[in-house]
Amino acid sequence: MDPKNSRFSTQISHLALDIGGTLIKLVYFSPNGDNCEDGSIVVGNGCSVVQGRLCFAKFETRKIDDCLDFIRFNILQHSGVQHTNGTARDKLSVKATGGGAFKFADLFKEKLGIVFDKEDEMHSLVCGVNFLLKTVPREAFTYLDGQKEFVQIDHNDLYPYLLVNIGSGVSMIKVDGDGKYERISGTSLGGGTFLGLGKLLTKCKSFDELLELSHQGNNRVIDMLVGDIYGGTDYSKIGLSSTAIASSFGKAISDGKELEDYQPEDVARSLLRMISNNIGQIAYLNALRFGLKRIFFGGFFIRGLEYTMDTISVAVHFWSRGEAKAMFLRHEGFLGALGAFTSYKDQSHSTELKPHHHTVERAVLKCSDDDSFRHIPVTANVNDGEAIECSINLV
Amino acid sequence: MDPKNSRFSTQISHLALDIGGTLIKLVYFSPNGDNCEDGSIVVGNGCSVVQGRLCFAKFETRKIDDCLDFIRFNILQHSGVQHTNGTARDKLSVKATGGGAFKFADLFKEKLGIVFDKEDEMHSLVCGVNFLLKTVPREAFTYLDGQKEFVQIDHNDLYPYLLVNIGSGVSMIKVDGDGKYERISGTSLGGGTFLGLGKLLTKCKSFDELLELSHQGNNRVIDMLVGDIYGGTDYSKIGLSSTAIASSFGKAISDGKELEDYQPEDVARSLLRMISNNIGQIAYLNALRFGLKRIFFGGFFIRGLEYTMDTISVAVHFWSRGEAKAMFLRHEGFLGALGAFTSYKDQSHSTELKPHHHTVERAVLKCSDDDSFRHIPVTANVNDGEAIECSINLV
Repeated sequence: MDPKNSRFSTQISHLALDIGGTLIKLVYFSPNGDNCEDGSIVVGNGCSVVQGRLCFAKFETRKIDDCLDFIRFNILQHSGVQHTNGTARDKLSVKATGGGAFKFADLFKEKLGIVFDKEDEMHSLVCGVNFLLKTVPREAFTYLDGQKEFVQIDHNDLYPYLLVNIGSGVSMIKVDGDGKYERISGTSLGGGTFLGLGKLLTKCKSFDELLELSHQGNNRVIDMLVGDIYGGTDYSKIGLSSTAIASSFGKAISDGKELEDYQPEDVARSLLRMISNNIGQIAYLNALRFGLKRIFFGGFFIRGLEYTMDTISVAVHFWSRGEAKAMFLRHEGFLGALGAFTSYKDQSHSTELKPHHHTVERAVLKCSDDDSFRHIPVTANVNDGEAIECSINLV
Repeated sequence: MDPKNSRFSTQISHLALDIGGTLIKLVYFSPNGDNCEDGSIVVGNGCSVVQGRLCFAKFETRKIDDCLDFIRFNILQHSGVQHTNGTARDKLSVKATGGGAFKFADLFKEKLGIVFDKEDEMHSLVCGVNFLLKTVPREAFTYLDGQKEFVQIDHNDLYPYLLVNIGSGVSMIKVDGDGKYERISGTSLGGGTFLGLGKLLTKCKSFDELLELSHQGNNRVIDMLVGDIYGGTDYSKIGLSSTAIASSFGKAISDGKELEDYQPEDVARSLLRMISNNIGQIAYLNALRFGLKRIFFGGFFIRGLEYTMDTISVAVHFWSRGEAKAMFLRHEGFLGALGAFTSYKDQSHSTELKPHHHTVERAVLKCSDDDSFRHIPVTANVNDGEAIECSINLV
């Protein structure tokens, strides 16, 4: 058997998926060089050590065909596991997590010949975060008052922490160690609520469009502030300033305006603030409950957007009176997929990740709505320098 | 001085207002008989004891002129304190609370000659609830699985409790005794959010219309359920059933539908569920924080609506695993106004409330959008039997 292909024959160990209600997240390993054949392979100790990068891609779940095409043409074909007729050989196994690992199992088997090796969603999330916090420097950061500050994580003082994963909905997980975790809370007001309500209210078509819109808006046009109720004054006795939001969307009740009379950017801003603030508050209350001082926020809702991070941070800071700290992760959107990816190492024929600590970068592969990415080797699509450089051991 | 008028000369002690961001709530005392002149007045111990009823009325804050007219024609005139030219004498003092006691102070002075004797909003809320729980039997009840059950309150075991007042926004107050309380939390997702978003999404004009609409809807049309993500199955490992809401409004992201393609009743239902559930969850988390087993929900958001109470109760029950109990109040909408009303008793020339425990009823005076209530004595407007029968002592 061709040794190059042997490692892909029963398991595509360089690909993992996290299929959520809104987005499909992919993590895949791309060897250094222009393509697989040129990858730097170091053999020693019975292992092949391959230098390369972890790359990231996302697709909307409702456009799952784009994801199937991407895997077919850029990963299966590129890995030499695809039949010339376009279908892969039977019983290729790939790590997959998220609800879609169940929902779309038959589709992947039928279309790509891929069988999902399902990993539990919460388990994958926790594994992904622990991997990032332990191995990738400058991964976690705080964001407050416009200041981004990287946090040095002491591996001996990592646990416990609260993980808040903001996907379509929100899961809150208390993490006490490797594989030691409990889902303690959550809320149905998450990224799906932002996009769902946002689409109904603004006619935006995508999450990014809605976020971009919210940048330009002013939530005070539509939110009812304390000052709006108190005639411009604070309610100082209980520490509520006149500019605090008393009622999200509360102004929409009182002036007889219709939806068309509001600027969509103001609506988007108010919506983003409402959901971010609510998540920050519920996260804080759960952190308080278990005495957790650190809260890591992840998931594709945040997307490194300053206003979102600022709102969440302020909510945590406000409610905890500065005692709890909101932290964010550079690879926030791929936690579950990364966790599924790292789970290959639990098996004998598995991959061990050894990121290069001195050159950690990330690549979010931006999949445009057109088909321009098709038929192009994945490495050519890495359009920024944010992939995680690492080596994998192939037994 | 005419003794009948003397008690109104400096203070209209039979009226109190709570002016919120969305609604104005009035509590006023109506002596028995068809009008004031026929009220049963018992004189003894230096006091006049007047038998009558506490009546309730509400107006939308944006239609404040209706409220002014109501007070002018039905309370001031009826009480004999109004000048024949339609304006009241100067320096009439009335207890008022809520942000509007500040915002609209000048308006009431100018239009009615009424000076607000301002009572703190939180203080009034707490006083109102304590008054109800201590003096009005069958005031508090639980609602779960379609069963309404009145709760017998032991006066010696009333405190501490959590008061959740759902107005335009939501305040959460830990109550430790008479006048002993602290606002510990709140959320901007309240009644103003429900009506504000509801109006933008459904074209409903009023809160009642929106509630009525939500009765007929099905939130599963627009909410993303766990089963929608997991292909119809539960996520049983963490105890989430397939019918649990994973993402409020989450389905609106995925099928390319526009707002017009959804039934407004489904949108209203999803909105009501989202906000009720969120309030229930945040309330529970705060109750847990302070070890409070009883949570009383008040404010005009609930309106005795079964679905709302059920959602809140289920949220509290679910998150607390049955340890905390959601309770509701029959006079939920008038807590602040009642508290302001009872504050008259703190003054020497004041009113003491002595509800008749055997015949407690309530009247919510429904103010229609037309002007039919004008010029009609208030007692003629009491269209149901829910006023609180009581006597007041006039010193």
